[in-house]
Amino acid sequence: MEILVAKSSGFCFGVKRAINIAHKCSNETPGEIYTLGPIIHNPQVVKKLEESNVYAKKGLDEVSSGTIIIRSHGVKLDEINAAREKGLDIIDATCPFVKKAQDLVSLLSGDGYSVIVVGEKDHPEVKGLISYGQGDVKVADSPEELRGMPRKKKIGIIAQTTLPMEKLEAVVSFCLHKASEIKVFNTICNATSIRQEESAELAEKVDVMIVVGGKNSANTRRLADICKTIQPRTYHIEVADEIDPSWFAAANSVGVTSGASTPDWVINDVVARVGEMQVK
Amino acid sequence: MEILVAKSSGFCFGVKRAINIAHKCSNETPGEIYTLGPIIHNPQVVKKLEESNVYAKKGLDEVSSGTIIIRSHGVKLDEINAAREKGLDIIDATCPFVKKAQDLVSLLSGDGYSVIVVGEKDHPEVKGLISYGQGDVKVADSPEELRGMPRKKKIGIIAQTTLPMEKLEAVVSFCLHKASEIKVFNTICNATSIRQEESAELAEKVDVMIVVGGKNSANTRRLADICKTIQPRTYHIEVADEIDPSWFAAANSVGVTSGASTPDWVINDVVARVGEMQVK
Repeated sequence: MEILVAKSSGFCFGVKRAINIAHKCSNETPGEIYTLGPIIHNPQVVKKLEESNVYAKKGLDEVSSGTIIIRSHGVKLDEINAAREKGLDIIDATCPFVKKAQDLVSLLSGDGYSVIVVGEKDHPEVKGLISYGQGDVKVADSPEELRGMPRKKKIGIIAQTTLPMEKLEAVVSFCLHKASEIKVFNTICNATSIRQEESAELAEKVDVMIVVGGKNSANTRRLADICKTIQPRTYHIEVADEIDPSWFAAANSVGVTSGASTPDWVINDVVARVGEMQVK
Repeated sequence: MEILVAKSSGFCFGVKRAINIAHKCSNETPGEIYTLGPIIHNPQVVKKLEESNVYAKKGLDEVSSGTIIIRSHGVKLDEINAAREKGLDIIDATCPFVKKAQDLVSLLSGDGYSVIVVGEKDHPEVKGLISYGQGDVKVADSPEELRGMPRKKKIGIIAQTTLPMEKLEAVVSFCLHKASEIKVFNTICNATSIRQEESAELAEKVDVMIVVGGKNSANTRRLADICKTIQPRTYHIEVADEIDPSWFAAANSVGVTSGASTPDWVINDVVARVGEMQVK
């Protein structure tokens, strides 16, 4: 049984950077070290960091001293301000692409645009993004969510960095009917679309597709959805232990891909376990 | 045989204004009066103005003195400058919506945007619009015309005022892939879309559809195309004399609409002539 691993699988740039910052911090920084929410959407990575004494906390009320690491998704502006007021040391591991999108929300808002963040309203990145706007700031995943919106003088649009391009296109098209001036910053990260395209190509070639990544990771779930529409025998797992030998019945080839927050060691485990499946 | 006339038929605001300016000029201004190209895309109106001593000239080389009226579509910036250098008196009858679009091309270009004017490259309005940009200014009617365009730092987009909305949406969607910053001014005039929608509704109700307007008017031709896809018995005419009784065989109802540059008297002639057709 042939095993093919998507070239773009594994950590993306922003995640790799955030993890490196956390590890560096655990080696060099004295005192307690916390992350505000899990540093990335992967339980295995969060567990490994705990072994290095970097603990994920849900909110600032659980932290009274020490160092707080801002995770790759970014956090809300008022959380950073609150951490400052508490006298915590802040280490910002926000992905530079997310940071740029945050700055653009602030810029558009300051320039008098009604701001629309295209993305999932419950995603931490999006919650962070909108906190950088003042006044008229909305989140929408589709034009349907903007139905009934009155006309605006000018609309500024930015995207969640992991948004599929079609969603941005759809909202921009809708907004052309709602204001005579539209400014769009396409803040979608290339890495996401490249990963999706490569995974889709792989799913077409193989008999079984394995998507590895946190079940709480929106970008991994989307990756699994994309692969499933192409190859119905697609399975979304977090770790190798979830693999079921029955998945590989009569399979000649297996594709493996992963979300942006899946570490290499987890992918390697999965590849090794699939290799042990002696089903032809 | 019932005759239904589209509510929005007849001159649009900009055309009405340009004709009024020309007539006022013919009454009040001494010396020769010219328009640079036909004042609007309607041969009957141009003929009527000639009777008031306002003559359409193809280019400035045909004019050496007197007053020149800039038509509703606007002209190229270098033509205005050349007219000034010739010492001609200039009366600007450019439609205020077109004027605004010209100013926006200049603004976007000055702000460092690669400018795309969405429209027909041979249309006088579009030729005028692009003349207000400097450096990187393109015309495109569809994404296909932009195929192969390299990535840009930032793209500014404006539309020919009579453009169908879908064409603007398509080019904007395409450009989202070509730059991380896009600024769009939706300069499409409402009057055009309202006229198109009303005419399409009328075409659905009637057995025969008559579209009245200059054969050289892009917006009238587009109106005829829209009606024809709904009612194949659609005829595009300029004057009542073109009407053929055979068109109305077994027709119970006839719809009449017109382009933005068709005067009321031409529409009234057509309605009267259709009324004379005694075919049930």
